[in-house]
Amino acid sequence: MANLSVISELHKKANTHIVLLVMDGLGGLPRDSDGKTELEAAATPTMDRLTREGTLGLSVPLGAGLTPGSGPAHLSLFGYDPIARPVGRGVLESIGVGLEVRPGDVAARGNFCSIDPQGRITDRRAGRIPDEQAQPLTERLAEIRVEGALVAIRHVREHRFALVLRGPDLDPALEDTDPQATGGPPLPVRASRPSAGKTATLVQGWVDQAFERLRGERLANGLTLRGFSTDPALPPFPKTFGVRAGCIAVYPMYRGVSALAGMQVVSFDGETPEDEFRAAAGAWKDFDFLFIHVKKPDSRGEDGDFEGKARAIEEVDRALPALLDLRPDVLAVTGDHSTPARLRSHSWHPVPLLLWAPATTRRDVQDHFGETACAAGGLGTMAASDLIPLLLAHAGRLEKYGA
Amino acid sequence: MANLSVISELHKKANTHIVLLVMDGLGGLPRDSDGKTELEAAATPTMDRLTREGTLGLSVPLGAGLTPGSGPAHLSLFGYDPIARPVGRGVLESIGVGLEVRPGDVAARGNFCSIDPQGRITDRRAGRIPDEQAQPLTERLAEIRVEGALVAIRHVREHRFALVLRGPDLDPALEDTDPQATGGPPLPVRASRPSAGKTATLVQGWVDQAFERLRGERLANGLTLRGFSTDPALPPFPKTFGVRAGCIAVYPMYRGVSALAGMQVVSFDGETPEDEFRAAAGAWKDFDFLFIHVKKPDSRGEDGDFEGKARAIEEVDRALPALLDLRPDVLAVTGDHSTPARLRSHSWHPVPLLLWAPATTRRDVQDHFGETACAAGGLGTMAASDLIPLLLAHAGRLEKYGA
Repeated sequence: MANLSVISELHKKANTHIVLLVMDGLGGLPRDSDGKTELEAAATPTMDRLTREGTLGLSVPLGAGLTPGSGPAHLSLFGYDPIARPVGRGVLESIGVGLEVRPGDVAARGNFCSIDPQGRITDRRAGRIPDEQAQPLTERLAEIRVEGALVAIRHVREHRFALVLRGPDLDPALEDTDPQATGGPPLPVRASRPSAGKTATLVQGWVDQAFERLRGERLANGLTLRGFSTDPALPPFPKTFGVRAGCIAVYPMYRGVSALAGMQVVSFDGETPEDEFRAAAGAWKDFDFLFIHVKKPDSRGEDGDFEGKARAIEEVDRALPALLDLRPDVLAVTGDHSTPARLRSHSWHPVPLLLWAPATTRRDVQDHFGETACAAGGLGTMAASDLIPLLLAHAGRLEKYGA
Repeated sequence: MANLSVISELHKKANTHIVLLVMDGLGGLPRDSDGKTELEAAATPTMDRLTREGTLGLSVPLGAGLTPGSGPAHLSLFGYDPIARPVGRGVLESIGVGLEVRPGDVAARGNFCSIDPQGRITDRRAGRIPDEQAQPLTERLAEIRVEGALVAIRHVREHRFALVLRGPDLDPALEDTDPQATGGPPLPVRASRPSAGKTATLVQGWVDQAFERLRGERLANGLTLRGFSTDPALPPFPKTFGVRAGCIAVYPMYRGVSALAGMQVVSFDGETPEDEFRAAAGAWKDFDFLFIHVKKPDSRGEDGDFEGKARAIEEVDRALPALLDLRPDVLAVTGDHSTPARLRSHSWHPVPLLLWAPATTRRDVQDHFGETACAAGGLGTMAASDLIPLLLAHAGRLEKYGA
């Protein structure tokens, strides 16, 4: 784990550009036919050239055997320790659907549930009602007004929604109202420390109104809230690492987690890698550090679509020359975690990492970007949270430590 | 170092079997003739097949340059930090000879010593009296009765024995009675905190009776005690890792350290690898996780017997198909530490590790299980204490961390 307070005292000015290009869920597992992973099966002539000119390695997102969610995986890539500084479920769910969470806000994750006439939960997930039924319900709940806070609510998926309260003196120290079992009523909103008493009352007021408005629904006639949390007040990325840092991402989750880290989110049109690299060109002068996020490899991996994931990687490779034309001094190509098509889910496997910095990298003997080559790469197996200091160093942005 | 409190909250039910097969002292050093280690010189066709289907790596028991004893080495393999949570010498020595140590017991390591007529120690090890002389002495001391505790004593080797006291309100906070020098008398039993005063008096009473019974012995006419300690109250392995965990081992030390970790010790007849794998078959339905310990490679290494160690490894390889017939989902083949025949002792060298989990491992390019291949293996060089979380992940037994 990088020592952020040491790093933050070693900044050096340099006229260099760093790009962290993240293909979400990049890491994979071998297919039976030829033992190749998605990345190994993909035709990636440009990344292979960068491999010959640079160094490979493997990046461990959280620790041995730990499969990260998207939030912790990115915090780790950004140099933070997501276990020492957990970001609440409510915050992650909210930023994931594009709700802004500022310091002092209280965010929660909500579930619609089914309640019997006696007020007891019969289904904690309201039969996993489809999006098209849940969406209008959250819109109905968006009309609720409470004294002392502004409330934002947004549908997530199926029975899930996100809720953010903004107002003076709010405190996220509230207990879940989800009893984690059927047969009893949802729990009242309770403060887990006295200073959250006012917030508990306020949220309970919102919940009571919500139950009124859900009355008569067949499946989603109740709700529970959990994961109450606020902005984790991370040490700001630009200040910690001494760079003007920008985020180029299509999905709200990644824009949100970048914003939590204090990066500036770049607005742009489009959603392909080409569009993102064009946005990078447009923002090039304003930033020393650009985080660029490509979602599709993860989505195809979650679908179990090996070929689709390989093609999504090839798309990035085809677009890559436009990014290289900007002449970054340091480019890291990696993922936030692995999503092997074989497992159809995030996994704990270390993530391929390609470090290209023509002026300052050693070379290794690898010539194709892939898991097997990365395992034998010159960077070895490293903690994801060590990557940013490594990029800064390669960009001439860290002073010597000690005399 | 795995974060056990994080791991313990991520359990997922799965119908999978994990086997941790430990060849004690597995790691070696190259012989002069052809530069092969014991493992590399051994014919291991089955392990080589698993190598082709799995991934290799090196496991560091405690840290760079640290040579572990058997106790710390196994605690590390079981996911604990034996430096943060040291297990007392008294406990390790006692479980090593099959004395049970429960929470609240007080265990110590004893040395017979030689005393002159003025009561001064002339030899701290009683001339390293042979087992056949020391054994009857410990039997004589086993007859001593003290008020307030049951006392168990067992011969270890040469001048060494182990002592365990069991009774109400015992406290292991006692200072060593071994002055670590000759020319002075053994120290009295002193409490290092007030709550151990009663225990000090009780142990002193036992010591006084022991001196009575040793009077007139030529060499072993006195004794010293050290390493007073109790069960370290490790977070129980089954609860921490969410598995029904069993131990299959012949030697008391390994059964003891497994019991300290809360594993269930499987009884069985015989002592060869075949016998142990037969025991695994018998216990298969009762456990999700089996630790199987094979002692011989370490013993031959300590003898300086390179060929004998290689043959001991081959014995395991020949028996291995019977274990594979049980269809484990995840199999790790490794050692607790290195015992190079060349050094005739435990060493600090990282330990070969083979991870086989057909559904969930990446492959690397290695095709023979050995130190050189492991150093270039896909798992890299990892902390031994990270192994269990990795095995759990490969067995589908850990949830994602964070959203």
